[in-house]
Amino acid sequence: MTVYLVGAGPGDPDLLTLKAVKILNKADVVIYDRLANEKILDHAPQAELIYVGKKAGEHYKNQNEINQILINAAKNYNMVVRLKGGDPFVFGRGGEEMLALLEEGIVVDIIPGVTSAVGVPTSVGLPVTHRGVATSLTIVTGHEDPTKSEKQVKWDFKADTIIILMGVGRLEDNTHELMKYKDPKTPVCVIEQGTMPDQRIITGTLENISQKNINPPALVIIGSVVDIFKKARL
Amino acid sequence: MTVYLVGAGPGDPDLLTLKAVKILNKADVVIYDRLANEKILDHAPQAELIYVGKKAGEHYKNQNEINQILINAAKNYNMVVRLKGGDPFVFGRGGEEMLALLEEGIVVDIIPGVTSAVGVPTSVGLPVTHRGVATSLTIVTGHEDPTKSEKQVKWDFKADTIIILMGVGRLEDNTHELMKYKDPKTPVCVIEQGTMPDQRIITGTLENISQKNINPPALVIIGSVVDIFKKARL
Repeated sequence: MTVYLVGAGPGDPDLLTLKAVKILNKADVVIYDRLANEKILDHAPQAELIYVGKKAGEHYKNQNEINQILINAAKNYNMVVRLKGGDPFVFGRGGEEMLALLEEGIVVDIIPGVTSAVGVPTSVGLPVTHRGVATSLTIVTGHEDPTKSEKQVKWDFKADTIIILMGVGRLEDNTHELMKYKDPKTPVCVIEQGTMPDQRIITGTLENISQKNINPPALVIIGSVVDIFKKARL
Repeated sequence: MTVYLVGAGPGDPDLLTLKAVKILNKADVVIYDRLANEKILDHAPQAELIYVGKKAGEHYKNQNEINQILINAAKNYNMVVRLKGGDPFVFGRGGEEMLALLEEGIVVDIIPGVTSAVGVPTSVGLPVTHRGVATSLTIVTGHEDPTKSEKQVKWDFKADTIIILMGVGRLEDNTHELMKYKDPKTPVCVIEQGTMPDQRIITGTLENISQKNINPPALVIIGSVVDIFKKARL
Protein backbone atom coordinates (compact mmCIF):
# COMPACT_ATOMS: atom_id res chain seq x y z
CA MET A 1 0.00 0.00 0.00
CA THR A 2 3.05 2.27 -0.09
CA VAL A 3 5.09 2.93 -3.18
CA TYR A 4 8.69 3.99 -2.56
CA LEU A 5 10.30 5.89 -5.42
CA VAL A 6 13.92 5.02 -4.74
CA GLY A 7 17.06 6.48 -6.31
CA ALA A 8 19.62 3.81 -7.17
CA GLY A 9 22.55 6.18 -7.67
CA PRO A 10 24.87 6.42 -10.67
CA GLY A 11 25.86 2.76 -11.05
CA ASP A 12 28.33 1.55 -8.43
CA PRO A 13 26.13 -0.53 -6.08
CA ASP A 14 28.08 0.90 -3.13
CA LEU A 15 26.66 4.31 -3.95
CA LEU A 16 23.19 3.20 -2.85
CA THR A 17 22.07 4.89 0.36
CA LEU A 18 21.48 2.94 3.56
CA LYS A 19 17.83 3.93 3.32
CA ALA A 20 17.47 2.48 -0.17
CA VAL A 21 19.06 -0.77 0.98
CA LYS A 22 16.73 -1.04 4.00
CA ILE A 23 13.66 -0.48 1.84
CA LEU A 24 14.80 -2.87 -0.89
CA ASN A 25 15.35 -5.51 1.79
CA LYS A 26 11.70 -5.38 2.79
CA ALA A 27 10.23 -4.91 -0.69
CA ASP A 28 7.52 -7.23 -1.96
CA VAL A 29 7.98 -6.11 -5.53
CA VAL A 30 10.60 -4.02 -7.34
CA ILE A 31 9.70 -2.27 -10.58
CA TYR A 32 12.80 -1.12 -12.42
CA ASP A 33 14.25 -0.01 -15.74
CA ARG A 34 17.69 0.44 -17.32
CA LEU A 35 19.78 0.06 -14.16
CA ALA A 36 23.48 0.62 -14.65
CA ASN A 37 24.09 -2.40 -12.44
CA GLU A 38 21.61 -5.18 -11.71
CA LYS A 39 23.58 -6.20 -8.60
CA ILE A 40 21.52 -3.56 -6.85
CA LEU A 41 18.59 -5.98 -7.07
CA ASP A 42 20.48 -8.42 -4.80
CA HIS A 43 19.34 -6.21 -1.93
CA ALA A 44 15.76 -7.35 -2.59
CA PRO A 45 16.09 -11.15 -2.42
CA GLN A 46 12.43 -11.80 -1.61
CA ALA A 47 10.89 -9.35 -4.04
CA GLU A 48 9.15 -10.06 -7.29
CA LEU A 49 11.07 -8.19 -10.01
CA ILE A 50 9.24 -6.38 -12.80
CA TYR A 51 11.33 -4.93 -15.59
CA VAL A 52 9.68 -2.03 -17.42
CA GLY A 53 12.63 -0.75 -19.46
CA LYS A 54 13.62 -1.22 -23.07
CA LYS A 55 14.07 -4.76 -24.36
CA ALA A 56 15.50 -5.62 -27.78
CA GLY A 57 12.75 -6.38 -30.29
CA GLU A 58 9.97 -5.81 -27.80
CA HIS A 59 7.43 -3.12 -27.15
CA TYR A 60 8.79 -0.31 -24.97
CA LYS A 61 6.34 0.48 -22.20
CA ASN A 62 5.13 4.06 -22.24
CA GLN A 63 4.72 6.18 -19.12
CA ASN A 64 0.97 5.53 -18.81
CA GLU A 65 1.56 1.80 -18.89
CA ILE A 66 4.28 2.10 -16.24
CA ASN A 67 2.01 4.24 -14.06
CA GLN A 68 -0.69 1.58 -14.36
CA ILE A 69 1.76 -1.17 -13.38
CA LEU A 70 2.71 0.87 -10.28
CA ILE A 71 -0.94 1.45 -9.35
CA ASN A 72 -1.76 -2.25 -9.76
CA ALA A 73 1.27 -3.26 -7.71
CA ALA A 74 0.27 -0.86 -4.93
CA LYS A 75 -3.14 -2.49 -4.80
CA ASN A 76 -1.73 -6.02 -4.60
CA TYR A 77 1.40 -5.65 -2.47
CA ASN A 78 2.24 -4.04 0.83
CA MET A 79 5.62 -2.59 -0.08
CA VAL A 80 6.32 -1.59 -3.64
CA VAL A 81 9.67 -0.18 -4.75
CA ARG A 82 9.97 1.82 -7.95
CA LEU A 83 13.74 1.83 -8.51
CA LYS A 84 15.26 4.52 -10.71
CA GLY A 85 18.86 5.28 -11.71
CA GLY A 86 20.44 8.32 -10.02
CA ASP A 87 17.89 10.45 -8.17
CA PRO A 88 14.22 9.74 -8.93
CA PHE A 89 13.46 13.39 -9.66
CA VAL A 90 16.35 14.29 -11.95
CA PHE A 91 15.01 13.56 -15.45
CA GLY A 92 13.56 10.27 -14.23
CA ARG A 93 9.87 11.13 -14.71
CA GLY A 94 9.47 10.31 -11.03
CA GLY A 95 7.27 13.37 -10.58
CA GLU A 96 4.74 12.01 -13.04
CA GLU A 97 4.69 8.65 -11.32
CA MET A 98 4.24 10.31 -7.93
CA LEU A 99 1.25 12.35 -9.18
CA ALA A 100 -0.38 9.33 -10.86
CA LEU A 101 -0.12 7.32 -7.62
CA LEU A 102 -1.39 10.15 -5.41
CA GLU A 103 -4.42 10.57 -7.67
CA GLU A 104 -5.33 6.98 -6.82
CA GLY A 105 -4.97 7.69 -3.11
CA ILE A 106 -1.81 5.61 -2.84
CA VAL A 107 0.81 6.55 -0.24
CA VAL A 108 4.10 7.58 -1.83
CA ASP A 109 7.50 8.03 -0.23
CA ILE A 110 10.54 9.26 -2.10
CA ILE A 111 14.11 8.27 -1.32
CA PRO A 112 16.71 10.51 -2.93
CA GLY A 113 19.74 8.97 -4.60
CA VAL A 114 23.17 10.22 -5.63
CA THR A 115 22.38 11.93 -8.94
CA SER A 116 24.77 10.94 -11.73
CA ALA A 117 25.00 14.62 -12.71
CA VAL A 118 27.02 15.36 -9.57
CA GLY A 119 28.15 11.95 -8.29
CA VAL A 120 29.91 10.87 -11.47
CA PRO A 121 32.17 13.94 -11.85
CA THR A 122 32.82 14.00 -8.09
CA SER A 123 33.94 10.38 -8.09
CA VAL A 124 36.61 11.05 -10.75
CA GLY A 125 37.94 14.17 -9.05
CA LEU A 126 36.12 16.75 -11.16
CA PRO A 127 34.65 19.39 -8.84
CA VAL A 128 31.42 20.76 -10.35
CA THR A 129 31.96 23.93 -8.30
CA HIS A 130 35.29 25.48 -7.35
CA ARG A 131 36.03 28.75 -5.61
CA GLY A 132 36.97 31.45 -8.13
CA VAL A 133 36.17 29.11 -11.03
CA ALA A 134 32.53 28.01 -10.78
CA THR A 135 29.92 29.29 -8.33
CA SER A 136 26.93 27.86 -10.20
CA LEU A 137 26.06 24.77 -12.20
CA THR A 138 23.24 23.91 -14.54
CA ILE A 139 22.01 20.37 -15.12
CA VAL A 140 20.09 19.78 -18.33
CA THR A 141 18.94 16.84 -20.42
CA GLY A 142 20.48 16.36 -23.85
CA HIS A 143 17.28 14.74 -25.07
CA GLU A 144 14.44 16.97 -26.09
CA ASP A 145 11.02 15.65 -25.26
CA PRO A 146 9.97 14.32 -28.70
CA THR A 147 6.32 15.14 -27.99
CA LYS A 148 7.06 18.85 -27.71
CA SER A 149 6.39 20.82 -30.86
CA GLU A 150 8.59 23.64 -29.71
CA LYS A 151 12.20 23.37 -28.64
CA GLN A 152 12.09 23.92 -24.87
CA VAL A 153 15.78 23.91 -24.00
CA LYS A 154 17.51 27.14 -24.86
CA TRP A 155 21.24 26.76 -24.40
CA ASP A 156 22.25 30.22 -23.20
CA PHE A 157 22.60 29.07 -19.62
CA LYS A 158 24.64 31.50 -17.60
CA ALA A 159 25.95 28.99 -15.06
CA ASP A 160 29.71 28.44 -14.89
CA THR A 161 29.42 24.65 -15.19
CA ILE A 162 26.96 22.92 -17.52
CA ILE A 163 26.23 19.23 -17.10
CA ILE A 164 24.29 17.34 -19.75
CA LEU A 165 22.62 14.07 -18.85
CA MET A 166 21.81 11.68 -21.71
CA GLY A 167 24.00 13.91 -23.80
CA VAL A 168 25.49 11.57 -26.40
CA GLY A 169 22.76 11.26 -29.04
CA ARG A 170 22.46 14.97 -29.69
CA LEU A 171 25.97 16.04 -28.66
CA GLU A 172 26.83 17.65 -32.00
CA ASP A 173 23.62 19.72 -32.09
CA ASN A 174 23.87 20.69 -28.45
CA THR A 175 27.53 21.75 -28.51
CA HIS A 176 26.71 23.73 -31.67
CA GLU A 177 23.96 25.55 -29.76
CA LEU A 178 26.26 26.12 -26.76
CA MET A 179 28.95 27.69 -28.98
CA LYS A 180 26.52 30.52 -29.74
CA TYR A 181 27.00 31.59 -26.12
CA LYS A 182 30.31 30.10 -24.99
CA ASP A 183 33.89 30.11 -26.26
CA PRO A 184 34.44 27.12 -28.63
CA LYS A 185 37.63 26.41 -26.64
CA THR A 186 35.66 25.86 -23.41
CA PRO A 187 36.92 22.58 -21.94
CA VAL A 188 34.61 19.56 -21.96
CA CYS A 189 34.85 16.23 -20.17
CA VAL A 190 32.75 13.22 -21.10
CA ILE A 191 32.44 10.32 -18.68
CA GLU A 192 31.07 7.08 -20.11
CA GLN A 193 29.67 4.43 -17.76
CA GLY A 194 30.39 6.61 -14.72
CA THR A 195 31.37 4.78 -11.49
CA MET A 196 31.25 1.42 -13.32
CA PRO A 197 34.18 -0.89 -14.15
CA ASP A 198 33.97 0.10 -17.85
CA GLN A 199 34.17 3.81 -17.06
CA ARG A 200 35.96 5.86 -19.75
CA ILE A 201 36.92 9.53 -19.66
CA ILE A 202 37.29 11.65 -22.79
CA THR A 203 38.30 15.31 -22.74
CA GLY A 204 38.13 17.96 -25.43
CA THR A 205 36.55 21.31 -26.13
CA LEU A 206 33.10 22.47 -27.21
CA GLU A 207 34.29 22.61 -30.82
CA ASN A 208 35.89 19.17 -31.03
CA ILE A 209 34.21 16.89 -28.45
CA SER A 210 31.47 15.67 -30.79
CA GLN A 211 34.10 14.36 -33.25
CA LYS A 212 35.45 11.94 -30.65
CA ASN A 213 34.40 8.32 -30.22
CA ILE A 214 31.79 8.48 -27.46
CA ASN A 215 29.22 5.86 -26.55
CA PRO A 216 26.17 6.14 -24.30
CA PRO A 217 25.47 6.20 -21.44
CA ALA A 218 27.66 9.21 -20.79
CA LEU A 219 27.66 12.47 -18.90
CA VAL A 220 28.98 15.68 -20.45
CA ILE A 221 30.57 18.35 -18.23
CA ILE A 222 31.36 21.75 -19.74
CA GLY A 223 33.32 24.58 -18.14
CA SER A 224 36.60 25.64 -16.57
CA VAL A 225 36.19 23.09 -13.76
CA VAL A 226 37.37 20.53 -16.33
CA ASP A 227 40.80 22.19 -16.09
CA ILE A 228 40.84 21.53 -12.33
CA PHE A 229 40.20 17.87 -13.11
CA LYS A 230 43.04 17.80 -15.67
CA LYS A 231 45.36 19.41 -13.12
CA ALA A 232 44.38 16.86 -10.47
CA ARG A 233 44.01 13.70 -12.59
CA LEU A 234 43.72 11.33 -9.68
CA MET B 1 48.36 7.62 3.44
CA THR B 2 45.06 8.02 1.65
CA VAL B 3 42.64 10.84 2.26
CA TYR B 4 39.03 10.09 1.42
CA LEU B 5 36.88 13.13 0.77
CA VAL B 6 33.51 11.70 1.71
CA GLY B 7 30.05 13.19 1.18
CA ALA B 8 27.80 12.78 4.23
CA GLY B 9 24.53 13.61 2.45
CA PRO B 10 21.92 16.19 3.49
CA GLY B 11 21.45 15.20 7.15
CA ASP B 12 19.43 12.01 7.64
CA PRO B 13 22.13 9.46 8.60
CA ASP B 14 20.31 6.87 6.46
CA LEU B 15 21.14 8.94 3.40
CA LEU B 16 24.82 8.04 3.72
CA THR B 17 26.02 5.74 0.95
CA LEU B 18 27.19 2.18 1.65
CA LYS B 19 30.62 3.25 0.43
CA ALA B 20 30.81 6.12 2.92
CA VAL B 21 29.84 3.77 5.76
CA LYS B 22 32.46 1.18 4.75
CA ILE B 23 35.19 3.83 4.64
CA LEU B 24 34.14 5.47 7.92
CA ASN B 25 34.24 2.03 9.53
CA LYS B 26 37.91 1.66 8.71
CA ALA B 27 38.93 5.27 9.28
CA ASP B 28 41.82 6.11 11.62
CA VAL B 29 40.83 9.74 11.80
CA VAL B 30 37.78 11.73 10.71
CA ILE B 31 38.08 15.47 10.07
CA TYR B 32 34.68 17.10 9.93
CA ASP B 33 32.78 20.36 10.11
CA ARG B 34 29.16 21.50 10.59
CA LEU B 35 27.50 18.12 10.07
CA ALA B 36 23.72 18.25 10.08
CA ASN B 37 23.76 15.13 12.24
CA GLU B 38 26.65 13.90 14.37
CA LYS B 39 25.17 10.37 14.50
CA ILE B 40 27.01 9.88 11.23
CA LEU B 41 30.22 9.73 13.27
CA ASP B 42 28.94 6.56 14.99
CA HIS B 43 30.03 4.73 11.83
CA ALA B 44 33.65 5.50 12.76
CA PRO B 45 33.88 4.10 16.30
CA GLN B 46 37.66 3.65 16.27
CA ALA B 47 38.60 6.91 14.64
CA GLU B 48 40.07 9.98 16.22
CA LEU B 49 37.65 12.85 15.58
CA ILE B 50 38.91 16.29 14.62
CA TYR B 51 36.38 19.08 14.39
CA VAL B 52 37.40 21.96 12.13
CA GLY B 53 34.11 23.87 11.89
CA LYS B 54 32.83 26.95 13.60
CA LYS B 55 32.75 27.00 17.37
CA ALA B 56 31.12 29.72 19.45
CA GLY B 57 33.69 32.22 20.69
CA GLU B 58 36.63 30.45 19.12
CA HIS B 59 38.83 31.07 16.15
CA TYR B 60 37.30 29.71 12.94
CA LYS B 61 39.88 27.69 11.02
CA ASN B 62 40.55 29.04 7.57
CA GLN B 63 40.95 26.87 4.49
CA ASN B 64 44.76 26.89 4.60
CA GLU B 65 44.72 25.68 8.20
CA ILE B 66 42.26 22.92 7.30
CA ASN B 67 44.39 21.88 4.34
CA GLN B 68 47.40 21.69 6.67
CA ILE B 69 45.49 19.54 9.17
CA LEU B 70 44.57 17.18 6.32
CA ILE B 71 48.16 17.00 5.10
CA ASN B 72 49.47 16.30 8.61
CA ALA B 73 46.83 13.64 9.17
CA ALA B 74 47.74 11.94 5.90
CA LYS B 75 51.38 11.77 7.02
CA ASN B 76 50.47 10.29 10.40
CA TYR B 77 47.57 7.95 9.67
CA ASN B 78 46.83 5.26 7.15
CA MET B 79 43.22 6.09 6.44
CA VAL B 80 42.04 9.65 6.76
CA VAL B 81 38.42 10.65 6.15
CA ARG B 82 37.52 14.24 5.39
CA LEU B 83 33.76 14.24 5.93
CA LYS B 84 31.67 16.95 4.31
CA GLY B 85 27.91 17.61 4.28
CA GLY B 86 26.08 16.79 1.03
CA ASP B 87 28.47 16.09 -1.84
CA PRO B 88 32.11 17.10 -1.27
CA PHE B 89 32.28 19.04 -4.54
CA VAL B 90 29.07 21.08 -4.33
CA PHE B 91 30.16 24.31 -2.61
CA GLY B 92 32.18 22.32 -0.11
CA ARG B 93 35.65 23.56 -1.10
CA GLY B 94 36.50 19.91 -1.61
CA GLY B 95 38.28 20.76 -4.85
CA GLU B 96 40.72 23.01 -3.00
CA GLU B 97 41.42 20.33 -0.42
CA MET B 98 41.97 17.75 -3.16
CA LEU B 99 44.48 19.99 -4.95
CA ALA B 100 46.36 20.83 -1.72
CA LEU B 101 46.72 17.12 -0.89
CA LEU B 102 47.77 16.12 -4.41
CA GLU B 103 50.47 18.81 -4.37
CA GLU B 104 51.97 17.00 -1.37
CA GLY B 105 51.89 13.69 -3.25
CA ILE B 106 49.09 12.34 -1.05
CA VAL B 107 46.65 9.82 -2.54
CA VAL B 108 43.10 11.18 -2.64
CA ASP B 109 39.85 9.34 -3.28
CA ILE B 110 36.50 11.06 -3.48
CA ILE B 111 33.19 9.49 -2.47
CA PRO B 112 30.15 11.36 -3.76
CA GLY B 113 27.22 12.00 -1.46
CA VAL B 114 23.57 12.90 -1.93
CA THR B 115 23.78 16.65 -2.49
CA SER B 116 21.27 18.62 -0.41
CA ALA B 117 20.43 20.67 -3.50
CA VAL B 118 18.66 17.68 -5.05
CA GLY B 119 18.15 15.24 -2.17
CA VAL B 120 16.25 17.62 0.09
CA PRO B 121 13.56 18.64 -2.44
CA THR B 122 13.30 15.04 -3.70
CA SER B 123 12.69 13.72 -0.19
CA VAL B 124 9.70 16.05 0.35
CA GLY B 125 8.12 15.27 -3.03
CA LEU B 126 9.35 18.33 -4.90
CA PRO B 127 10.65 17.21 -8.30
CA VAL B 128 13.49 19.50 -9.41
CA THR B 129 12.72 18.52 -13.02
CA HIS B 130 9.32 17.64 -14.45
CA ARG B 131 8.29 16.96 -18.02
CA GLY B 132 6.75 20.03 -19.62
CA VAL B 133 7.57 22.13 -16.54
CA ALA B 134 11.34 22.06 -15.94
CA THR B 135 13.97 20.55 -18.23
CA SER B 136 16.92 22.26 -16.56
CA LEU B 137 18.01 23.27 -13.10
CA THR B 138 20.67 25.59 -11.78
CA ILE B 139 22.34 25.18 -8.40
CA VAL B 140 23.99 28.27 -6.97
CA THR B 141 25.33 29.45 -3.64
CA GLY B 142 23.54 32.31 -1.89
CA HIS B 143 26.80 33.36 -0.27
CA GLU B 144 29.17 35.45 -2.27
CA ASP B 145 32.81 34.76 -1.60
CA PRO B 146 33.65 37.75 0.62
CA THR B 147 37.22 37.86 -0.71
CA LYS B 148 36.01 38.62 -4.22
CA SER B 149 36.05 42.28 -5.09
CA GLU B 150 33.61 41.83 -7.92
CA LYS B 151 30.21 40.19 -7.68
CA GLN B 152 30.63 36.88 -9.45
CA VAL B 153 27.09 35.51 -9.38
CA LYS B 154 24.85 37.05 -12.00
CA TRP B 155 21.27 35.98 -11.42
CA ASP B 156 19.90 35.81 -14.94
CA PHE B 157 20.13 32.04 -15.02
CA LYS B 158 17.95 30.66 -17.78
CA ALA B 159 17.25 27.31 -16.11
CA ASP B 160 13.63 26.45 -15.28
CA THR B 161 14.43 25.57 -11.65
CA ILE B 162 16.86 27.53 -9.50
CA ILE B 163 18.14 26.07 -6.25
CA ILE B 164 20.05 28.24 -3.78
CA LEU B 165 22.26 26.58 -1.19
CA MET B 166 23.10 28.61 1.92
CA GLY B 167 20.42 30.98 0.73
CA VAL B 168 19.01 32.47 3.94
CA GLY B 169 21.49 35.22 4.83
CA ARG B 170 21.19 37.06 1.54
CA LEU B 171 17.68 35.94 0.56
CA GLU B 172 16.28 39.45 0.22
CA ASP B 173 19.13 40.66 -2.01
CA ASN B 174 19.12 37.51 -4.10
CA THR B 175 15.36 37.39 -4.70
CA HIS B 176 15.56 41.09 -5.59
CA GLU B 177 18.21 40.26 -8.21
CA LEU B 178 16.17 37.31 -9.51
CA MET B 179 13.08 39.50 -9.98
CA LYS B 180 15.00 41.46 -12.62
CA TYR B 181 14.74 38.34 -14.78
CA LYS B 182 11.80 36.35 -13.42
CA ASP B 183 8.15 37.04 -12.63
CA PRO B 184 7.76 38.25 -9.00
CA LYS B 185 4.93 35.69 -8.68
CA THR B 186 7.29 32.77 -9.42
CA PRO B 187 6.67 30.18 -6.71
CA VAL B 188 9.36 29.56 -4.11
CA CYS B 189 9.77 26.79 -1.56
CA VAL B 190 12.17 27.00 1.36
CA ILE B 191 13.13 23.84 3.23
CA GLU B 192 14.79 24.36 6.62
CA GLN B 193 16.77 21.49 8.20
CA GLY B 194 16.08 19.25 5.20
CA THR B 195 15.69 15.49 5.93
CA MET B 196 16.08 16.16 9.67
CA PRO B 197 13.44 15.80 12.42
CA ASP B 198 13.12 19.60 12.70
CA GLN B 199 12.48 20.02 8.98
CA ARG B 200 10.18 22.93 8.14
CA ILE B 201 8.73 23.88 4.77
CA ILE B 202 7.74 27.45 3.85
CA THR B 203 6.24 28.43 0.51
CA GLY B 204 5.77 31.81 -1.09
CA THR B 205 6.78 33.76 -4.17
CA LEU B 206 9.89 35.63 -5.24
CA GLU B 207 8.35 38.88 -4.06
CA ASN B 208 7.25 37.75 -0.59
CA ILE B 209 9.46 34.86 0.52
CA SER B 210 12.11 37.05 2.17
CA GLN B 211 9.44 38.56 4.47
CA LYS B 212 8.72 35.17 6.02
CA ASN B 213 10.31 33.76 9.15
CA ILE B 214 13.13 31.60 7.82
CA ASN B 215 16.11 30.26 9.72
CA PRO B 216 19.29 28.69 8.41
CA PRO B 217 20.28 26.13 7.33
CA ALA B 218 17.76 26.16 4.52
CA LEU B 219 17.50 25.39 0.84
CA VAL B 220 15.60 27.70 -1.52
CA ILE B 221 13.87 26.24 -4.61
CA ILE B 222 12.47 28.63 -7.22
CA GLY B 223 10.29 27.77 -10.21
CA SER B 224 7.07 26.16 -11.39
CA VAL B 225 8.12 22.78 -9.98
CA VAL B 226 7.05 24.21 -6.61
CA ASP B 227 3.46 24.02 -7.91
CA ILE B 228 3.90 20.27 -8.53
CA PHE B 229 4.98 19.93 -4.91
CA LYS B 230 1.92 21.89 -3.72
CA LYS B 231 -0.32 19.68 -5.85
CA ALA B 232 1.27 16.53 -4.43
CA ARG B 233 1.84 17.56 -0.80
CA LEU B 234 2.78 14.11 0.44
